[in-house]
Amino acid sequence: MPIGADLLCETLLANGIDTCFANPGTSEMHFVAALDRQPRIRCVLGLFEGVVTGAADGYARMADRPAATLLHTGPGLANGLANLHNARRARTPMVNVVGDHATYHLVHDAPLTSDIDSLARPMSHWVGWAENVETMVSSTEEAIRAAHSGQGQVATLILPADAAWSETEAPLPQAIALPVQSAPDAARIAEAVAALRNGKATTVLVGGRALRSASLELLQRIATRTGARILAQQSNARVERGTGRVAIERVPYPVDMQLATFAQTEQVILIGAKAPVGFFAYPGKPGSMLPEGCRVIDMTAPDADLPAAVQALADAVGAGRDIPLVLNVAARPDAPTGALTAEKCAASVARHMPANAIVCDEAVTSARNIFGITHGAAPHDFLQLTGGAIGIGLPMATGAAIACPDRKVIALQADGSGMYTVQALWTMARERTDVVVVVYANRRYNILHGELKAVGAGQPGENARRMLDLDNPHLDWVRMAEGMGVEAARAETAEVFDDLFRAACASRGPFLIEAVI
Amino acid sequence: MPIGADLLCETLLANGIDTCFANPGTSEMHFVAALDRQPRIRCVLGLFEGVVTGAADGYARMADRPAATLLHTGPGLANGLANLHNARRARTPMVNVVGDHATYHLVHDAPLTSDIDSLARPMSHWVGWAENVETMVSSTEEAIRAAHSGQGQVATLILPADAAWSETEAPLPQAIALPVQSAPDAARIAEAVAALRNGKATTVLVGGRALRSASLELLQRIATRTGARILAQQSNARVERGTGRVAIERVPYPVDMQLATFAQTEQVILIGAKAPVGFFAYPGKPGSMLPEGCRVIDMTAPDADLPAAVQALADAVGAGRDIPLVLNVAARPDAPTGALTAEKCAASVARHMPANAIVCDEAVTSARNIFGITHGAAPHDFLQLTGGAIGIGLPMATGAAIACPDRKVIALQADGSGMYTVQALWTMARERTDVVVVVYANRRYNILHGELKAVGAGQPGENARRMLDLDNPHLDWVRMAEGMGVEAARAETAEVFDDLFRAACASRGPFLIEAVI
Repeated sequence: MPIGADLLCETLLANGIDTCFANPGTSEMHFVAALDRQPRIRCVLGLFEGVVTGAADGYARMADRPAATLLHTGPGLANGLANLHNARRARTPMVNVVGDHATYHLVHDAPLTSDIDSLARPMSHWVGWAENVETMVSSTEEAIRAAHSGQGQVATLILPADAAWSETEAPLPQAIALPVQSAPDAARIAEAVAALRNGKATTVLVGGRALRSASLELLQRIATRTGARILAQQSNARVERGTGRVAIERVPYPVDMQLATFAQTEQVILIGAKAPVGFFAYPGKPGSMLPEGCRVIDMTAPDADLPAAVQALADAVGAGRDIPLVLNVAARPDAPTGALTAEKCAASVARHMPANAIVCDEAVTSARNIFGITHGAAPHDFLQLTGGAIGIGLPMATGAAIACPDRKVIALQADGSGMYTVQALWTMARERTDVVVVVYANRRYNILHGELKAVGAGQPGENARRMLDLDNPHLDWVRMAEGMGVEAARAETAEVFDDLFRAACASRGPFLIEAVI
Repeated sequence: MPIGADLLCETLLANGIDTCFANPGTSEMHFVAALDRQPRIRCVLGLFEGVVTGAADGYARMADRPAATLLHTGPGLANGLANLHNARRARTPMVNVVGDHATYHLVHDAPLTSDIDSLARPMSHWVGWAENVETMVSSTEEAIRAAHSGQGQVATLILPADAAWSETEAPLPQAIALPVQSAPDAARIAEAVAALRNGKATTVLVGGRALRSASLELLQRIATRTGARILAQQSNARVERGTGRVAIERVPYPVDMQLATFAQTEQVILIGAKAPVGFFAYPGKPGSMLPEGCRVIDMTAPDADLPAAVQALADAVGAGRDIPLVLNVAARPDAPTGALTAEKCAASVARHMPANAIVCDEAVTSARNIFGITHGAAPHDFLQLTGGAIGIGLPMATGAAIACPDRKVIALQADGSGMYTVQALWTMARERTDVVVVVYANRRYNILHGELKAVGAGQPGENARRMLDLDNPHLDWVRMAEGMGVEAARAETAEVFDDLFRAACASRGPFLIEAVI
């Protein structure tokens, strides 16, 4: 007779979820046994839960459908929360299954008991319980429905061990009707159209699925027709770009640059985006990046079909196919030479990136020029850290590679952030992912050195250096990667880096390059 | 003029907190600058927050006073929660400082904004806000007071950036009166004495500071006088043991063994301990490990001075110095030979452990015999995983070594658990800690293989093996350690292991031995 965990697996499969990133424990053992009986689900082990949740994020961004995760009680969930935070900001669909003690065991406050609900809520759009075996299917369906709601949501389903292990004669689940995104809202579109025609300086700020190629072409035509400026949000789950596509710039990170970007803006139209704010607060500087009096028009509902909304706007302003498009032309930088810098790495990335690559950017300060230099690189998807919680780069690349096994994944990785979830390298090796990892080894939390200077602290002293520098000893990324089964090499000159990166792009990965900059 | 962050540092120092395990971010930059102006505080960087909180736990267990931690916003706290969970179960005193956005910036819901309070509560005994610069000292004092309450508590203080950076003319703080543990409760003691004299089969279950040497001697005399059995809890923050000390056994982990342990027990007297429960629930097995009708007498209040309570009990039952003690005599196993096993590793550990060592045990299934075989080893402290959240071993060893720089720390580490916070190796290297790490490389989550078998799933299939085995590729711990600056070697025979461990004990660490078992 099937048990609750079998029904959970069947409900996932019936609704198109066939990949489970996992790190199980004892309370999930019946779920593990059920997965073992269900080979149609692909289980991917992460050696730390931050790898599990970050990989599920990368997977869903590229697959456009959720993966499941399997996490062990409150502490296992806690280990995955930082990347759930990023996924929530990316509006990534995801179904987390968090095993808990049997319901009747909670009263004993056994060592692993904790308040999972309190832990899950801040980083989940939806939290629910698979209370018992009779409601297993409906609870799981509710989680899946939540994951597919809005622009995509993080749904966390808590699975008590007794609900998982109890037998049931309930029928096998069928596919449910998933939520459909809402059609363009005529009133919102009309408000945006009126704004675009009122002669004021207008920025259209774009996020989510409106950053795919087809929408970006429409947006460029809208800009040409109306004179508005189109900008992507600072951090985006996924942007389609490169040769033959539309170039779109992003809102910059530093507050002063953000303020300058919007200084002349009289009105902002949001399409799947949020009004720009400072990533952090600074004494004496504003939190909103928009000038006083700037009007904000939110053109899309939270659950809007963004490409449809862009199409409706284009239709309404007459931005048709008669308007010529300006698309990126191939522009490959010259081969860099001499001492290695982050900028020279970027040149090599732009030169050798194969068509259809997936670029995962968690290079923080070291990738400041990567976006600009790759407009004319081969067509690719560009995935960013969306929530500011470092440690998603390597897991995200792993998940993206599993979603798209025929595409090269390029992970641009800061060393400080990379250490957070360095265990992802092992999963890259085990799953034979085609990833080339570039670790920018500047051997410091470089962004924090800048911030320390900004607070007027002067030259860092002993304690500040001890907290901001990753030296004494240096991290040897080649050995760490090899230790986890990933082939690796070090580059200390631009010539060596260019050679290594070209070769890594030409053969199947995973491969890691430590770029000492 | 000092700023809030300066007052925070001064308040910590005035109350004996001079070590700060840290991983800062932008919102903590004024706190970093304040720490930089305050060289009396030793700042220790962890490359992941799980290292930070686990090290603070190990430090406090050995120093008997709290360290501070510095964590960056909700996601940084989240990364440290699993080891806070363990610290909470260990009743370790700790003051976590979690930086948050400036209070007025929260309304903007910037990318790193999250509900820190909801995240902190499940793993903290106390959560508070340093609301503004005027209340900075009193908020910090309250956190320190909380940390020193009960048997030791995890206190989490949320530090908004504007409270940290605002200037103040408030006077420098003085040392506060810390909470004093309560004297023995005459009524509770009397109840225990009566029970010890009623002729029933009695187990005295002991935890916390009653597991130090002086209390254990008294407890042995009590046992001799009354016929009661003395047992330590299953998992303990710290036990003093080895040659010349009292041998105490622990409650076993497997439910069936626990049930057998207490099958004949008619009454349990708790001294800083909890009544035994199953670590997990299993179908058809009870949650409480005590037989029906077993009487439970809690002899100590939550904030009791446990050594004083033990002394009071000894006085009351007449367990004086006239009762001879049976202390462990030196018993060194023979040198093991042949194929390496976990048991042979334990023999080498027992043989070569130097006097006054600190043993940190997160070897899970591989250390099942380590406790028994080390009763006659050199005197040492034994520190365990207390909350079941794996990934504390390497950080705990790091913190213990920082608290006790003149003592050898021996980290007995399962490979699966070790990967959770493998970044601790770098901090071990940087801080020149005297740690020898033994990684039991069985290349699987061995405990889960046992659990899978127990649920009747038969031979693991493809999905189960993919989730329970750490192979394909193997982890190369030698390379990973060297990559983080820790010298390392591999042992595949008992002879090699014995040689390596002896040599590692004879010279200053850190050093890692990968024991392939």
